[in-house]
Amino acid sequence: MSNTNAPTVKKDGPGRLASVYSELQTSRLNVSLPLPSVLKKTFNVVDGAPSSASGNPEEIKKLFPKLFGQPSARLVECDPKACSMENKSLKIGVVLSGGQAPGGHNVISGIFDYLQERTNGSKLYGFKGGPAGIMKCKYVELSTEYIYPYRNQGGFDMICSGRDKIETPEQFKQAEETAKKLDLDGLVVIGGDDSNTNACLLAENFRSKDMKTRVIGCPKTIDGDLKCKEVPTSFGFDTACKIFSEMIGNVMTDARSTGKYYHFVRLMGRAASHITLECALQTHPNITIIGEEVAAKKQTLKNVTDYITDIICKRSEAGYNYGVILIPEGLIDFIPEVQQLIAELNEILAHDGVDQDGAWKKKLKSQSQELFELFPKAIQEQLLLERDPHGNVQVAKIETEKMLIQMVETELNKMKQKGAYKGQFNGQSHFFGYEGRCGLPTNFDANYCYALGYAAAALLHAGKTGLISSVGNLGEPVEEWTVGGTALTSLMDVERRHGKFKPVIKKAMVELEGIPFKTFASLREDWTIKNLYVSPGPIQFVGPNANDINHTLKLELGPPAQAKLNK
Amino acid sequence: MSNTNAPTVKKDGPGRLASVYSELQTSRLNVSLPLPSVLKKTFNVVDGAPSSASGNPEEIKKLFPKLFGQPSARLVECDPKACSMENKSLKIGVVLSGGQAPGGHNVISGIFDYLQERTNGSKLYGFKGGPAGIMKCKYVELSTEYIYPYRNQGGFDMICSGRDKIETPEQFKQAEETAKKLDLDGLVVIGGDDSNTNACLLAENFRSKDMKTRVIGCPKTIDGDLKCKEVPTSFGFDTACKIFSEMIGNVMTDARSTGKYYHFVRLMGRAASHITLECALQTHPNITIIGEEVAAKKQTLKNVTDYITDIICKRSEAGYNYGVILIPEGLIDFIPEVQQLIAELNEILAHDGVDQDGAWKKKLKSQSQELFELFPKAIQEQLLLERDPHGNVQVAKIETEKMLIQMVETELNKMKQKGAYKGQFNGQSHFFGYEGRCGLPTNFDANYCYALGYAAAALLHAGKTGLISSVGNLGEPVEEWTVGGTALTSLMDVERRHGKFKPVIKKAMVELEGIPFKTFASLREDWTIKNLYVSPGPIQFVGPNANDINHTLKLELGPPAQAKLNK
Repeated sequence: MSNTNAPTVKKDGPGRLASVYSELQTSRLNVSLPLPSVLKKTFNVVDGAPSSASGNPEEIKKLFPKLFGQPSARLVECDPKACSMENKSLKIGVVLSGGQAPGGHNVISGIFDYLQERTNGSKLYGFKGGPAGIMKCKYVELSTEYIYPYRNQGGFDMICSGRDKIETPEQFKQAEETAKKLDLDGLVVIGGDDSNTNACLLAENFRSKDMKTRVIGCPKTIDGDLKCKEVPTSFGFDTACKIFSEMIGNVMTDARSTGKYYHFVRLMGRAASHITLECALQTHPNITIIGEEVAAKKQTLKNVTDYITDIICKRSEAGYNYGVILIPEGLIDFIPEVQQLIAELNEILAHDGVDQDGAWKKKLKSQSQELFELFPKAIQEQLLLERDPHGNVQVAKIETEKMLIQMVETELNKMKQKGAYKGQFNGQSHFFGYEGRCGLPTNFDANYCYALGYAAAALLHAGKTGLISSVGNLGEPVEEWTVGGTALTSLMDVERRHGKFKPVIKKAMVELEGIPFKTFASLREDWTIKNLYVSPGPIQFVGPNANDINHTLKLELGPPAQAKLNK
Repeated sequence: MSNTNAPTVKKDGPGRLASVYSELQTSRLNVSLPLPSVLKKTFNVVDGAPSSASGNPEEIKKLFPKLFGQPSARLVECDPKACSMENKSLKIGVVLSGGQAPGGHNVISGIFDYLQERTNGSKLYGFKGGPAGIMKCKYVELSTEYIYPYRNQGGFDMICSGRDKIETPEQFKQAEETAKKLDLDGLVVIGGDDSNTNACLLAENFRSKDMKTRVIGCPKTIDGDLKCKEVPTSFGFDTACKIFSEMIGNVMTDARSTGKYYHFVRLMGRAASHITLECALQTHPNITIIGEEVAAKKQTLKNVTDYITDIICKRSEAGYNYGVILIPEGLIDFIPEVQQLIAELNEILAHDGVDQDGAWKKKLKSQSQELFELFPKAIQEQLLLERDPHGNVQVAKIETEKMLIQMVETELNKMKQKGAYKGQFNGQSHFFGYEGRCGLPTNFDANYCYALGYAAAALLHAGKTGLISSVGNLGEPVEEWTVGGTALTSLMDVERRHGKFKPVIKKAMVELEGIPFKTFASLREDWTIKNLYVSPGPIQFVGPNANDINHTLKLELGPPAQAKLNK
């Protein structure tokens, strides 16, 4: 378990002092990570069949003339004599793009260790502050000492991240200049759907200019919405969901012990509700709202409120005036009537503004007017006051959990007057987000990320470009994981924006026909009245269940993985 | 480690189904707990010197004529032939009083196991829903099967808790009736300062009526404000602080990675700031507000705001536009001017109410008027609208962290206009409370509680009453812990209420001359600009640091314990 080569580090790079680490942080530093067996042996990178696109292959072909159709790659053990991997030195850059996710540091460690162990005299540059670091050529050369304090640690602070995109011809030019200046053989882009799309555009651009710089992507996002057959999960999802579920489980025990609060827990994840679904599978809340289902059933905010109110009434009749309710951060984005209201509000705010007397409300369509009146006063104010730099309503800032508490309370009061509800309702609100993005990665995320990074470096070593690092067979022990790369163009479709086709990797939403949702749907009725709360407790790094993977992945991997993992 | 007598439990008592436990919960169920060595041997209960009171001994003597002055007791190993503990059967009741704290179930398990192992044919009754359960004689007889699913688990849901008090002559009468009906030899009251005062009044009452029922208290509260020399800590504090610190550490790593947010974290603990202090010692935030210091320095809200603003400016100059700030839940209760404003508001609300135009504000004294105007609008509304059933302002509902964000932002904007601040300020608010009250108890809390319960039963077995279960020498391994009971009257002082002396166990506040605060005060300057964040990570139950105790306790126990624990 112990890394005998651990250097004595007093001061790290940008801000970490290993000397002020907690004992758990320190103990994690020196845990050496298992690798899939193919990465421990001599291997070749073998091509598969040619690929297509997720949709509109003709358009994708036009957008990626050099890369479209390229096969995915697989690492296959080979006899040392048959190995075609050149013994050369590589210059590689790595960049973190977008929001934090536990494990990012291990991707970088994986790249670094590959270069150390499998090549001679290679260099690894970390671009600072995200893609802007590439454009501005702001970087640090990563060394054993520099990387050491970040091994198995949460956060992105080794080189930090950013949300800039390399989009315009000038920006591509800047990236080219950096690649040339540093004589880069390769670049690893660690990011979500947008960043991986960007990585592919960069790869295409470098190839079209006959530059030697190759680009490989890595799937990162706690939201869990970047995944496909070859990339079973994005890193960080496992850790974040386990941290949130620890808190939810604690709140559940508190709810049951106290017997007088309804805890409304909003969970990070704006676009897709994977986090909420996973936390529900881990903890069994009384009520869970899944955005994708709300959208598919075209539910109104009133429908959602009534659904919650109805269960609260039933629970009250059963003697329970407490409970736990999970809500995805992006809930109101999923409700068509709310989207409509916000679109109308944006128009009104942009053109005429609002008056104190409320005469402006007449400009709303009647359905939107009704909906606006339904909102609690505090939310009405948020809708009018909180605007982004473009003057648009900031949906993300709306505290949906507090909004629902107020709306449910109003409904329950009405029912009380009619004698249809006799309970006591006290809502408590929670938002879990920042707490989960930078936790110490679980063993799964630590191992998965290390393998993703090691594989990314191997793919670059083999001269591959435009692939996303792909580690599979995740239901089996690490030794049996498969390793390769998937053509990024094969994950793409196009969207029409400003009259042009733009390539996109579509976000993987919660599929209502998928096994995780169906499992949840088959159980949730039981969870509403019975209190089948599960408290997963804090993430453990040692012990019998320390390597368990999350429910979503387990269910998506299918029965054999489930059986194995349930043992 | 494994409990071979673990019964197969399908359905537990009030709501726990062991079949839906997480794997960690299940693994904790079967961990057998170490006992202090004296509790594993034959012992006698030996009296110490007579005791006095914490203050006003004459008044305490009048209030507790039967119990005042009684000695504390100590368990001492003895030869089996010299043992004076009778072999008899006991009927014992147990009650949980007040807010949840991790470990309560283990106190009950400790009592139960003592009775099973050291007496014959004893019975243990759990009073349901707190002291009300005693008064209404609502109870359940606890059995091996009933208790099993709660072993080492968080929450109070085995028998639940309540906030009622046994105060009036009628209520004492009800308690007597219950004690007689169940033929109780003893009662264990698990609670905070108030509940232990109540326990002593009950003990005095039973004794004065020549009833056989003895009463022993146990120190419970996550707030950590029930402690003295003989009772080094209250249970639950260790777990709650570690859970909060896990979250704070994660938020710190996020702050450093993202580089653009100030996280204002409010922490549960209204009366004393022990939790905030402990979390600061664990995590090294940039700014920590300790209520007791604010009160001692007679600081105003403006002083506190300026203190924060000043550090934010200095950090901005050093290139950091992010940080983490800890705030105790009870902060505004510590600020004299706020107490004054609220007292005036309560008067105005009770008598005249407030008008829309704000003419009512003229009734405030000028200092209070100024302060009111200083508050952000949302807080002004909370002050006027949120009232408790008595019509008083609900200070606890005020989101102090959001209030400070707004006040700091206003100050920074002013400074920006003057050119004195050039940074960007984005506040994010957090409140950690319910997440920590019911977590799986740490090894320390699990062991400590088990010993407290085991000791409480031993004290009752020896015929003791009016003592609080006292387990000491906590810096050493469990085997070396000392076990005894401390006279509750010795912890008491009196307060004058409604013209009468009332006995109180004074809350242990953060002592500005104590070692934990002084340690913090000697380090905090360093933490403001340098980012010496520590991320304690999730509580571990297995591994090298799984038995570590919290910093406050470690520091209060003194250098030898520290040295030992730091190894």
